[in-house]
Amino acid sequence: MSTVNKTAHAFDKARLDALLNRRFFYAPAFEIYGGVAGLYDYGPPGSSLQANIISEWRRHFIVEESMLELDTTIMTPAPVFESSGHVARFADWMVKDSGNGEVLRADHLVKNVLEARLEGDREARGAAPVAAAADEKKKKKKQAKSTAVKLDDAVVAEYESILAQLDNYTGPELGGLMRTHTITNPSSGNPVGEPQQFNLMFASSIGPTGQHPGFLRPETAQGHFLNFSRLLEFNNGRVPFASAQVGRAFRNEISPRAGLIRVREFTMAEIEHFVDPLDKSHPRFAEVADVELVLLDKYVQAAGQSTTRVMTVGAAVADGVIANETLGYFVARIYAFLLHIGIDPARLRFRQHMANEMAHYAADCWDAEIQNSVGGWTECVGCADRAAYDLSVHAAATKQSLVVREALKEPVVEERAVAEWDKKALGKAFKGDAGAVTSAVEALDEAGLMRLKGELAQGSATIKTAAGKEFTLEPTMLAIERKTFKTFVREYVPNVIEPSFGVGRILYCLLEHSFWSREQDVDRGVLSLPAVVAPTKVLIVPLSARAEFDPLVKEVSLRLRKAGVHARVDDSNTSIGKRYSRNDELGTPFGVTLDFASVQNRTMTLRERDTMDQRIGAIDDVLGAVVALVQGAITWEEACARLPRYDGVQAVE
Amino acid sequence: MSTVNKTAHAFDKARLDALLNRRFFYAPAFEIYGGVAGLYDYGPPGSSLQANIISEWRRHFIVEESMLELDTTIMTPAPVFESSGHVARFADWMVKDSGNGEVLRADHLVKNVLEARLEGDREARGAAPVAAAADEKKKKKKQAKSTAVKLDDAVVAEYESILAQLDNYTGPELGGLMRTHTITNPSSGNPVGEPQQFNLMFASSIGPTGQHPGFLRPETAQGHFLNFSRLLEFNNGRVPFASAQVGRAFRNEISPRAGLIRVREFTMAEIEHFVDPLDKSHPRFAEVADVELVLLDKYVQAAGQSTTRVMTVGAAVADGVIANETLGYFVARIYAFLLHIGIDPARLRFRQHMANEMAHYAADCWDAEIQNSVGGWTECVGCADRAAYDLSVHAAATKQSLVVREALKEPVVEERAVAEWDKKALGKAFKGDAGAVTSAVEALDEAGLMRLKGELAQGSATIKTAAGKEFTLEPTMLAIERKTFKTFVREYVPNVIEPSFGVGRILYCLLEHSFWSREQDVDRGVLSLPAVVAPTKVLIVPLSARAEFDPLVKEVSLRLRKAGVHARVDDSNTSIGKRYSRNDELGTPFGVTLDFASVQNRTMTLRERDTMDQRIGAIDDVLGAVVALVQGAITWEEACARLPRYDGVQAVE
Repeated sequence: MSTVNKTAHAFDKARLDALLNRRFFYAPAFEIYGGVAGLYDYGPPGSSLQANIISEWRRHFIVEESMLELDTTIMTPAPVFESSGHVARFADWMVKDSGNGEVLRADHLVKNVLEARLEGDREARGAAPVAAAADEKKKKKKQAKSTAVKLDDAVVAEYESILAQLDNYTGPELGGLMRTHTITNPSSGNPVGEPQQFNLMFASSIGPTGQHPGFLRPETAQGHFLNFSRLLEFNNGRVPFASAQVGRAFRNEISPRAGLIRVREFTMAEIEHFVDPLDKSHPRFAEVADVELVLLDKYVQAAGQSTTRVMTVGAAVADGVIANETLGYFVARIYAFLLHIGIDPARLRFRQHMANEMAHYAADCWDAEIQNSVGGWTECVGCADRAAYDLSVHAAATKQSLVVREALKEPVVEERAVAEWDKKALGKAFKGDAGAVTSAVEALDEAGLMRLKGELAQGSATIKTAAGKEFTLEPTMLAIERKTFKTFVREYVPNVIEPSFGVGRILYCLLEHSFWSREQDVDRGVLSLPAVVAPTKVLIVPLSARAEFDPLVKEVSLRLRKAGVHARVDDSNTSIGKRYSRNDELGTPFGVTLDFASVQNRTMTLRERDTMDQRIGAIDDVLGAVVALVQGAITWEEACARLPRYDGVQAVE
Repeated sequence: MSTVNKTAHAFDKARLDALLNRRFFYAPAFEIYGGVAGLYDYGPPGSSLQANIISEWRRHFIVEESMLELDTTIMTPAPVFESSGHVARFADWMVKDSGNGEVLRADHLVKNVLEARLEGDREARGAAPVAAAADEKKKKKKQAKSTAVKLDDAVVAEYESILAQLDNYTGPELGGLMRTHTITNPSSGNPVGEPQQFNLMFASSIGPTGQHPGFLRPETAQGHFLNFSRLLEFNNGRVPFASAQVGRAFRNEISPRAGLIRVREFTMAEIEHFVDPLDKSHPRFAEVADVELVLLDKYVQAAGQSTTRVMTVGAAVADGVIANETLGYFVARIYAFLLHIGIDPARLRFRQHMANEMAHYAADCWDAEIQNSVGGWTECVGCADRAAYDLSVHAAATKQSLVVREALKEPVVEERAVAEWDKKALGKAFKGDAGAVTSAVEALDEAGLMRLKGELAQGSATIKTAAGKEFTLEPTMLAIERKTFKTFVREYVPNVIEPSFGVGRILYCLLEHSFWSREQDVDRGVLSLPAVVAPTKVLIVPLSARAEFDPLVKEVSLRLRKAGVHARVDDSNTSIGKRYSRNDELGTPFGVTLDFASVQNRTMTLRERDTMDQRIGAIDDVLGAVVALVQGAITWEEACARLPRYDGVQAVE
């Protein structure tokens, strides 16, 4: 077997970008019209890769845990986002260049300028830039025009501390930082104004009259919450259960410049797991308790540090680092999913939200951050315990009851005071006001009722109605009694644990983690995508487009299709080696060649992408091996044990 | 085997609606906020049904024909839709109630009122309403307040003629019809104003400055056209090829009231097949030539008729009824797909667009219309030959070349006149104007050059530059010669054949075609969805939720999941019969029951939804049969031959 050295060449983002563009993984949308920042189209391999990631996501989450899938509406009437808080708070802070009017995101400006200064300092001190992030630094440097200027040690420490807690600053605080540290727009040198909030939702209007403002959803979550009662009923009234949805969402980003990492339209995969607030244990927690995760908790960050630690999920929940079992279970399941599709575990960590960063209602929140050359450590999955916030705000706004009613095994017995009325005496005394009087009494709490009982025992009592009118109550009208009540049903608003995946970000990080160049030729790029997500699993390569190969090509295609293995034929007019190189760039893990020997002897060769090893065998045997390989039933080593080595075609590679 | 009488009860839309709502196939979006017309959310069974329809669509079209899948952007900058013609022309005619300001779609108003009058006439003449459309008529009647008024025979004929060509009227013509036939708003009795155009695209704005207007795409097609050059390159420069895309689109309908038939946000599945305009034959046409279709051609409609005829696709193309083989091939493939997922062929026809109805650039267009109680014969798939329109308009607007370059087997040899310059003499004579002079000469056509040659032969010639300046040319400066040119490449704008599917409309029609009630009890609804699209294929029913059934439930679940068969466990606390009834409503084709006999003897019963037949066998045998049934490898009759009849549980149904 050949040996593979995937690190022979340093990661080169320009080469990866060229490959992704050349093979149409994705491209700027509306490119022939000059493009629009933050909007991308996926071509055939990108669409397939995305579809395969989503398909594995469905299998890993929805099928494995019998979640209830939804497909809800993007165009949303404004009142929904008024209740959810998005109209008031779903905003980023932007600043305007005082000279040319350019609009920049405030936190990104601070980050870019301070990172450029730190990079300049490192250069001045003679240090090499960090290898993995070299490309990113180069870009930042260009954007922020850094030069090699040495900074005081205290300044370096201050900048590093600011960067470690950047997500924790408010808009006015960012404005303060810009003034204190003389931060200007690096592309013009002009100062910028005070940070202003800019709502990130795209606005539109529904219907022909223009009277119904609407927004494009910035997440799929509200569609789950609004359908909660229907989902609960579909699940026969039982909790916990989870809904799941894959769908498009929109955010009108201020100035997106980071490829797929920051876009204005994207595919999300979201789960809302509804759980009893008094019991956030998870029945399958034991299955994940021993999984080791790299964690960056909120205390470390608040101290201006970014030191991670490795813990098992079991220990993290036991020690209170992760708030509860259900949250821990999903963090571990997210970890397993990301590794399954090919994310490098060495470039994956879980970062806890800091106090100001987290939504005010959330109990705890962890982001799966994946390292990449564009955004550094980038949030690709969020996993939050949103408590009862969402269902509560929608219930309050709509006066609909969004609760679980649970039959109690043992009724709850409780003694409390109640008013018993003599309706006739009441009506006679108060006539039309009788209703307001009973309402006022029934609104009293236990202490209020007992006070009323005492007053009545002394002859009479006064009560003030909601409208502020006072009435005198007498013992002939009512008696206050303590009675015993049995409750057979418990009613509660469930809490929500929300794992939320940005599919495009994960896809881009996966492409970076999968990309390398052949040791012998830096121009020969390879995407080592796992078979499970690779756009095409098997390339079928006839020696040429000559008719004599047609029957075999058709046979092999059909048999692979019947086995559920996605294959493509490449009979283009170029050498077999060039065709394989093209498919190395497309991430196609296996190739089979049909030549004159195939026609004569019914043999076929099998090539593995990463090692370029070639094996040969009877068509039936090779098909059996390749199907097993794609299904993950055997490894390449096991396939090699079945099929002898083939050297005949090496010359063409 | 039991006999099934699916027509024992007349179709009852109210019962179907109640079922779809109760089982959360879909529901009005934002329902707890009062809902928004034309926006719906799909619940778990609706999402699965939709996903399965799309999955079969992918298999039937994309996989079967190796189409190139895309996933392009919804939020589109305005210039794209200015080029495509949508900004100017993607509009419906609306009218405003002169009293209450209600906005109505002009053609729908004419249709509703005239149909109500015709229905009133039929009642007055003592005829029963047409059975299948009774429900629709009832609603129309209510909307349009028809009463039993007899009309003159000539008026009936006129109304019928108007309705047969309703899609062919312009807005002013609709206004004329309203005046001539005194059509008012049926819900208020008020007259309506003149028809006005209302653009159906949702508008928004991209970026923080509000300077970039955008629209939500009303179809996915532009995303294909804008990426044409990349797709062509991906396909190694070869034509024909097809791109395909499934995605969301948006239309701000004027007053949607027809459930899933007319919505403001919907999922489309679109194919753009790029083909040589000189050769629209299709290599696989022979495979479909004998397929018989029900056709309603444009001549019949223009004559005010709606008489269909049955033709083979082969005959329709040969006779010029369908414009070309590729269009005919897709019409036949659409037909096969719709039947495959369960559409009733007796309620499916293909209607050709009339002259005014068709986009001005289109060569031919056929709609697959499916009959349903809401919209009558409703367009669910369009299949148009859009000629070279789309690529041409985008090429013109962007100055990008959107063409195919085809190497010619035989070069085209052509003789034409060219100017041969003496650059030195030219420069000396005209200096800085030399460039403008050569350009002016090169812009001349063959005749112009030959005229110039004649003038030069007589001593000198004058030429006017683009700027309008005149220069005198002399024979020392240039000679006009006829030369032979060989062209090795043909360059052309491909034509586009576009099959475009409205997934929600198809889904709704399928639900109507699948719905019936048990003969013995009209309240026991069944959805006879084919296994291939049914949301759940197999229901696993343990006798109770007792722990002793757990191991078997897990085993059967796992084995079905491994076989790729989507199953669900229902261990809710209700009778087996009730659980099966619930799943009849969900369209689940098969059920297996695990009881004490299963624990003791490892047997399992198998129930078929439509017949309610029950069979029994060893768990292994039943699993083998049910997997084969779901995969379509055996019929129920064949399964019955393998497994003996079981009568033990019939009492509980």
